[in-house]
Amino acid sequence: MVGSVRVLSATQRDAYLSECRAAAVGAIEALIGERERRHPAYRAVLDYPLREAKGLRPALAIATCRALGGGFAEMLPTAAALELLHNAFLVHDDVEDGSALRRHAPTLAAKLGVPLAVHAGDTMLSLALGPLLDNMRLLDLGRALRILDLVASVLRRTVEGQALELGWIADHRWDISPDEYVEMVTLKTAWYTFAAPIVAGAIVAEARPALIDELTRFALDLGVAFQIRDDMLDLLAEPAVTGKEHCGDLWEGKRTLILSLFFSGAAPGDAAFARALLDRPRPRVTDPADPTDTAQLDRAIAALGDRIAPDIRDAVRAAFRASGAALYKTSTDVAKLRMLIEAYIHRAGEVAADFASRASQRWASIRPAMEPSVHRDLIESILAFTVARSR
Amino acid sequence: MVGSVRVLSATQRDAYLSECRAAAVGAIEALIGERERRHPAYRAVLDYPLREAKGLRPALAIATCRALGGGFAEMLPTAAALELLHNAFLVHDDVEDGSALRRHAPTLAAKLGVPLAVHAGDTMLSLALGPLLDNMRLLDLGRALRILDLVASVLRRTVEGQALELGWIADHRWDISPDEYVEMVTLKTAWYTFAAPIVAGAIVAEARPALIDELTRFALDLGVAFQIRDDMLDLLAEPAVTGKEHCGDLWEGKRTLILSLFFSGAAPGDAAFARALLDRPRPRVTDPADPTDTAQLDRAIAALGDRIAPDIRDAVRAAFRASGAALYKTSTDVAKLRMLIEAYIHRAGEVAADFASRASQRWASIRPAMEPSVHRDLIESILAFTVARSR
Repeated sequence: MVGSVRVLSATQRDAYLSECRAAAVGAIEALIGERERRHPAYRAVLDYPLREAKGLRPALAIATCRALGGGFAEMLPTAAALELLHNAFLVHDDVEDGSALRRHAPTLAAKLGVPLAVHAGDTMLSLALGPLLDNMRLLDLGRALRILDLVASVLRRTVEGQALELGWIADHRWDISPDEYVEMVTLKTAWYTFAAPIVAGAIVAEARPALIDELTRFALDLGVAFQIRDDMLDLLAEPAVTGKEHCGDLWEGKRTLILSLFFSGAAPGDAAFARALLDRPRPRVTDPADPTDTAQLDRAIAALGDRIAPDIRDAVRAAFRASGAALYKTSTDVAKLRMLIEAYIHRAGEVAADFASRASQRWASIRPAMEPSVHRDLIESILAFTVARSR
Repeated sequence: MVGSVRVLSATQRDAYLSECRAAAVGAIEALIGERERRHPAYRAVLDYPLREAKGLRPALAIATCRALGGGFAEMLPTAAALELLHNAFLVHDDVEDGSALRRHAPTLAAKLGVPLAVHAGDTMLSLALGPLLDNMRLLDLGRALRILDLVASVLRRTVEGQALELGWIADHRWDISPDEYVEMVTLKTAWYTFAAPIVAGAIVAEARPALIDELTRFALDLGVAFQIRDDMLDLLAEPAVTGKEHCGDLWEGKRTLILSLFFSGAAPGDAAFARALLDRPRPRVTDPADPTDTAQLDRAIAALGDRIAPDIRDAVRAAFRASGAALYKTSTDVAKLRMLIEAYIHRAGEVAADFASRASQRWASIRPAMEPSVHRDLIESILAFTVARSR
């Protein structure tokens, strides 16, 4: 199957992706007039969208729509809305996960504090309604409403998937079965990142219902493979490639297939070490509005003056730092866990390969419904890329 | 003007409000099926909506719609969506403001931690789309789309208003003019709490455009009066009445008209004291996932064992607490500020009375467009209540 696909070169593929992303970001910027861009509500809104990113969602929407005979202009507002909603969820996810880096720069929460980051996400969610309502005038009413229904149901699935994960975190659960993991990422990622843009593209292009069903199943298998591989990259790649912290998922205690397989296969002592480490919070992201604990101790020691001998003062400081280290995750422990899970990265790759190969089979039956075009080639390239990444 | 209104008794008014609120909450519960209610995504969603509250928004929407000849059933989904969106913003505002109490109980952030609270708000925002899309089938398309447009534009105003306030907080700005304050609460509160439900009611009842314009201006004046008086109540009423902390706005550093008037009129020394106090953070709301600083010091001291003498140990602990107190707001300082601003509460009341009286004048020209009914009486009662509160 895979051997027969017609793929673009990496350069052609990336050019297509970045063209779609530029168009979507342009449409997002156009939602915010020049005057409003100075308004504090909108300053933070463009921060994530303007950072360098793959732009997978706009490209998948536009490529599917055009491969099925639809037009670029009638797809763009929906592609922009999906990209904006995606960025809104990234901003809030980074607050929820306490992440430090996103796309090669500090997260909005680390940059502006939690209040402004939560608010920026809400502003982005509110703005995304605009282009979806513009669809009423741009498309016929039937398609505009089907897209609104699609977005509403995908948003619902996305929050359900995120809730599964936050629920596991709150319950300190690590015995996640591979099926539970797949359910979670299907809801949280595969629907939003793959099914939503591909199905939206098919709706705008007026594809027949049976084809839309096939495209949905293709998109979900592809999405799961993609996400598993993304979790592997978090452990394998350098921050310069991912734009995130190295092993950021371990710092955040993210539930990945790799850890799911590790916990079901590891020696009890290793599993206990991992559980204790993963359940400790990471050191707090510094909140600009919040004085640090060290400042509080320094003031206390200064206030005591001569009453506290210099050697005791230093000992208290050192013990305070060491005690903080015992309460939080440390680099040494994270590095040790990274070693322990090495073998399970490969096993997760096998699961990703299964999903990728199922996606390839589905693609084989979808492909004949599309005329040959650069748009069809783009979808095929992303499939081939995911298959290759999964090896 | 005010003397001529026909008001319900407090009991009648409260019965009307609670009937509408119960219907809206029922419609919100119906969005989440029995099975789904066990799903972690939805557990937190009903928390705020089920807490005791006035239910102003559903009542204003239903009363306006029915006073203008519209039906209850065709108004209910929109009333439920507005109530759900309102609760979503409350959840996120409580995260952004670091509030401790909401409606007589700990805020969702205090109860479940910031990650689950941010996520619950997103889930509520996502769910609210459902009833607005159901309107497409329930109402004719024209009205359903106008309501979606109204909601999109009101959400935009709400986040703009909240951004103005968060921007002032981030910039440590306290020299807010009364006009700036009115702009902020018009966007943040008056549009959402008064104009959105009243205009939605008028749209469903197919009121003529000129009447909708008059109703909008009436709602905005009423909303500003209501919010100023709400800020006064925060300082005057007991927590048993407001369901919030006493002087919670001072703890949170909220920009109110009272403080705006205080800063323009206070002696330089008093203003400097107030500015220094208000800009200090409040003690952190305890996050269940985050060990406290005191625990860190206790472990440090324990680790030092005999190396630190008991009297020095106690002195370090006391100095650590005192140093924390100097970094954060304290009850003593908040109580002192409360005394300093006493006179300005009354002056803010005068501004509220101006807005309430303008609302009364607008009402006088709107009233003849409505047949006498309990629904018209309800709107009048809320007007009379706001006028009376503003004295």
